[in-house]
Amino acid sequence: MRISQLSRRSGVSVTTIKYYLREGLLQPGRQTAATQAEYDDQHLRRLRLIRALTGVRGLSVSTTREVLDALAEHTGDTHRLLGLTLGSVRVGEEPAVDAPEAAQVEALVEKLGWDVHESAPARATLAETIGHLRALGVPLDWQTLLPYARLAERTAVLDLDQLKGIDDPLEAAERALLLTVLLEPALMALRRMAQENESARRHTP
Amino acid sequence: MRISQLSRRSGVSVTTIKYYLREGLLQPGRQTAATQAEYDDQHLRRLRLIRALTGVRGLSVSTTREVLDALAEHTGDTHRLLGLTLGSVRVGEEPAVDAPEAAQVEALVEKLGWDVHESAPARATLAETIGHLRALGVPLDWQTLLPYARLAERTAVLDLDQLKGIDDPLEAAERALLLTVLLEPALMALRRMAQENESARRHTP
Repeated sequence: MRISQLSRRSGVSVTTIKYYLREGLLQPGRQTAATQAEYDDQHLRRLRLIRALTGVRGLSVSTTREVLDALAEHTGDTHRLLGLTLGSVRVGEEPAVDAPEAAQVEALVEKLGWDVHESAPARATLAETIGHLRALGVPLDWQTLLPYARLAERTAVLDLDQLKGIDDPLEAAERALLLTVLLEPALMALRRMAQENESARRHTP
Repeated sequence: MRISQLSRRSGVSVTTIKYYLREGLLQPGRQTAATQAEYDDQHLRRLRLIRALTGVRGLSVSTTREVLDALAEHTGDTHRLLGLTLGSVRVGEEPAVDAPEAAQVEALVEKLGWDVHESAPARATLAETIGHLRALGVPLDWQTLLPYARLAERTAVLDLDQLKGIDDPLEAAERALLLTVLLEPALMALRRMAQENESARRHTP
């Protein structure tokens, strides 16, 4: 398809597509004339992914490129691909972590027997949150987090189940990325609603 | 205590405390001289709460005031207080919601039998996320969300359990607010780590 059709089908303007091409987020199309290139469904899928990462979740162009590069480098090994995909997007900004909080996270991971990379950004995010809550007078140790982690295990099973039947590892990784990043607001919304309901259940006569 | 001591104990600068006083986020202290006022532990707790809402979660001063006003208006009724507290903070920006997505949320809430206010912002957030994922070719109907919602129910039980033993309704509401808003990054981090672990479990020989 031409760039104009790629724009229509993706909902991304031609100007923005050209910007992504210049920045190397999108691979060039197949050149058919001096000023014309042909794009395919891979471009369309990639473009939707970029839009999801930058638009919906507000990642910077450079973070998006890091994530996409990680995807492209590991097409052979499904687990490494998923690991990189799921681990590569930070939950917030790069946190500064104190040692006592990192030790709580380490104790939790050990207790759970989880296979999580030492440098996974999620570890740092977890440690940082423990630090914030402690500063506000809400102690949060690994024992308190353990039942939450058990529920997270079951959530992850649901997440991974949604990737079943997708044979192409790259497509599975892209889907995993979408579900990880974009499902977060939905899961937080469900928690809010469930809290409201649970509060009603406990306090209504 | 004097404003300088309030500043030391809260970690909030005197300039910022004076700004919160001017904006009405913090109640004035007890005037002891023309240029001196006395503050108490209520001020300290409130200040920590304001810092959590504005600093850690990036709420605007006006949204923070709305939340705190809601807290102050409903000190008599624990459930209403918790409901307002938990329901009052939006997960993201005010979303624009399409009717088909809102119907999916309604079907889900009905199936679950949840007692959630019609105008709860979390409903709109959930509908918006369904819309985003649909636009990216990932269908997400209420049937898919149901097992996630069941896990959210159990998370909410853990959340509400942490408020046990706090008799003062205002203090319980403040604690609920902290746990709701500040625990979110931790829960998302746990999900990321659990996904990585589950992926290792499935794909490692």
